Amino acid sequence: MTGRIFVVGLGPGAPEQRTPQADAALAQATDLIGYAPYVARVQAGPEVVRHASDNRVELERARHAIELALAGRVVAVVSGGDAGVFGMASAVFEAIDHGPAAWRGVEVTVIPGVSAVLAAAARLGAPLGGDFCVISLSDNLKPQAVVHKRLAAAAEAGLVMALYNPRSKARPHQLGEAFDLLRTILPGTVPVAFARAIGRPDERVILTDIAHADPEQVDMSTLVLIGCPLTHTIARANGEKWLYTARRVDEVE
Amino acid sequence: MTGRIFVVGLGPGAPEQRTPQADAALAQATDLIGYAPYVARVQAGPEVVRHASDNRVELERARHAIELALAGRVVAVVSGGDAGVFGMASAVFEAIDHGPAAWRGVEVTVIPGVSAVLAAAARLGAPLGGDFCVISLSDNLKPQAVVHKRLAAAAEAGLVMALYNPRSKARPHQLGEAFDLLRTILPGTVPVAFARAIGRPDERVILTDIAHADPEQVDMSTLVLIGCPLTHTIARANGEKWLYTARRVDEVE
Repeated sequence: MTGRIFVVGLGPGAPEQRTPQADAALAQATDLIGYAPYVARVQAGPEVVRHASDNRVELERARHAIELALAGRVVAVVSGGDAGVFGMASAVFEAIDHGPAAWRGVEVTVIPGVSAVLAAAARLGAPLGGDFCVISLSDNLKPQAVVHKRLAAAAEAGLVMALYNPRSKARPHQLGEAFDLLRTILPGTVPVAFARAIGRPDERVILTDIAHADPEQVDMSTLVLIGCPLTHTIARANGEKWLYTARRVDEVE
Repeated sequence: MTGRIFVVGLGPGAPEQRTPQADAALAQATDLIGYAPYVARVQAGPEVVRHASDNRVELERARHAIELALAGRVVAVVSGGDAGVFGMASAVFEAIDHGPAAWRGVEVTVIPGVSAVLAAAARLGAPLGGDFCVISLSDNLKPQAVVHKRLAAAAEAGLVMALYNPRSKARPHQLGEAFDLLRTILPGTVPVAFARAIGRPDERVILTDIAHADPEQVDMSTLVLIGCPLTHTIARANGEKWLYTARRVDEVE
């Protein structure tokens, strides 16, 4: 019996934003592995074994998946959004790269999904209309100095920024420090959006600007989107606003 | 009769990589608008009007969609991948922003999709495991000096780069110039991938490194992925390779 691994991006939350390809992979799985809230999101029969784990144990989880696959199981390693964007995909390959040679024989298929940044952008309008970057604010895996260097480089180069993992109880001050840094580079009127739990029942969107961005309105489930000088808001008669980034860049910034 | 606009990301190509939400929006459409190859990709009954257009007429196309919606039609404006990533979404909002006030009353819903960069990354392994950026190489809407400034900033900050619109007949030299620039910043061993038509029958993947990257292997349908010093290849016994970016950044680069 030959086992294999599917690394599956579940999409933002609503089942209609998950691809049929992801559903087909999940339907083949004998085992589900992932952070508990994502494993819980998958419907599966009682014969499917659920290995739900805590946050921050990505490598252990990846090794477990590889061992199960080599033992003949069909393992779906699940992540929210897209598994390749701060999800489980890189942990699986990292585990293989540093594991026994036999691990390179395991069959791994990564199934892409609609990432949180794409779902948030669609909900807001078209803030990613130009070049953009995606940065994790977490200092779990990299020093804060690297985070700050990247934020400054992106702002100076005129890239729109999507910030993942913007804030946790263990590091409540980082996001405010990031905003302070960006205020030294960007005009205060540059739009900022907080998009929380997009596509889920507790969805919440806040639009502000970098001068007024308040980290207290952000939690770990929020995607923070920071515009560039070409990002504009459009006010509608019903009080709603759209956010978009103009496509044409005329000047050398 | 109230019209509306759906801006729909069709995903990379294969129908199983398109979300049910996108299919549901397409099923409501009375009119399909977009670049001809994307409109052709949508299955629809003979009563649905297809407005296929050439490339580079995004704003005209957007205005046409708005006028149809205000006349009561249900218009699906379609893009490949995700409509918010170098697709039609920002053109629609740009047209509204610069159009008559009444245009702000039109109902616009953006449906996210699996973007080309996410599909290519999944096919390759997990090259987006860390922070990354997405940059269009086209000088249709921005000066080459801005493109070069952004490439240099991203490389110096250690971001993995996904390059859209890397090469066209009108500008065959740009990609080579971009590689030359990046060779002055990145170690020659940094992996580079050319991912063409991922998820479609004519899919083709080439793995190389920045020292050896050959622009002649790239066309307009190719997504160019440039790693960072933490991007590694894993050689498999069957001759295939995986590409992934390690998640841990130890040093201040």
